[in-house]
Amino acid sequence: MADDPRSRQERKADVLARLTGPVVDAWVATAGDAGPHLVPLTLAWLDERILLATSRTSVTARNLAAGSRARIGLGPTRDVVLVDAALEATIPVAEAEVEGAAYAAQSDWDPRTAGESYVFLALRPDRIQAWREENEIPDRLLMRDGAWLV
Amino acid sequence: MADDPRSRQERKADVLARLTGPVVDAWVATAGDAGPHLVPLTLAWLDERILLATSRTSVTARNLAAGSRARIGLGPTRDVVLVDAALEATIPVAEAEVEGAAYAAQSDWDPRTAGESYVFLALRPDRIQAWREENEIPDRLLMRDGAWLV
Repeated sequence: MADDPRSRQERKADVLARLTGPVVDAWVATAGDAGPHLVPLTLAWLDERILLATSRTSVTARNLAAGSRARIGLGPTRDVVLVDAALEATIPVAEAEVEGAAYAAQSDWDPRTAGESYVFLALRPDRIQAWREENEIPDRLLMRDGAWLV
Repeated sequence: MADDPRSRQERKADVLARLTGPVVDAWVATAGDAGPHLVPLTLAWLDERILLATSRTSVTARNLAAGSRARIGLGPTRDVVLVDAALEATIPVAEAEVEGAAYAAQSDWDPRTAGESYVFLALRPDRIQAWREENEIPDRLLMRDGAWLV
């Protein structure tokens, strides 16, 4: 039997705990001329932004630079967090002192050692959903238009 | 320290074991006018096809019907399977005797009980990749243009 559904307040706390935990692995979807793209990436959370680190020439970086939004999924199917986000800034690793330190502290690697082709992508979430079982489908929306609902 | 990289033969066997296991949860990315879409769905594997079950009006079903490809991610970041696939058939649950039986046997629910709006989406894989750690990035391609490389 499913647990009682969490309140939106509880879910927001769980989402923030997840986003700020160690080594947060996520599935990152973008879209481009070749259709949908999807890759597993480790993210960090800094100042209400999702930080990704990847090569500037990766499909993900190119799709975002060309205007694609990102849709990011975390967790197993029975404990889902879904974040829709837009690219706010692309920061070469050589210029990413604050971002690099935050990412290295939260993740298990430091993209500043990965070479000049690497960039940090700072994504601004505008929609966040979280649910576990069917009974949490109502109230799954926690952020809309960039504003937390709780 | 990472294990020795698996051969392509081993990876194909691991991928097929994963796709045919019980309750295979996957992240399914598609693209549409609103950009990238991503949802967690349980898949089944029947006759070298991925079967998804969802409402005909879901964004995923509509994107695929409009011609989007699908990119499907399985597993944790350290044991990834990535499948690119195209829609082959959309089968209303009421007409899906074979697909329904296969899906219900492998999954933990029977979409034929979910109402008339539900359909099975049969997706034909044309590209499959699998890797665990960095040392498995070479040889990660297991299927190309719909043909297994091993």
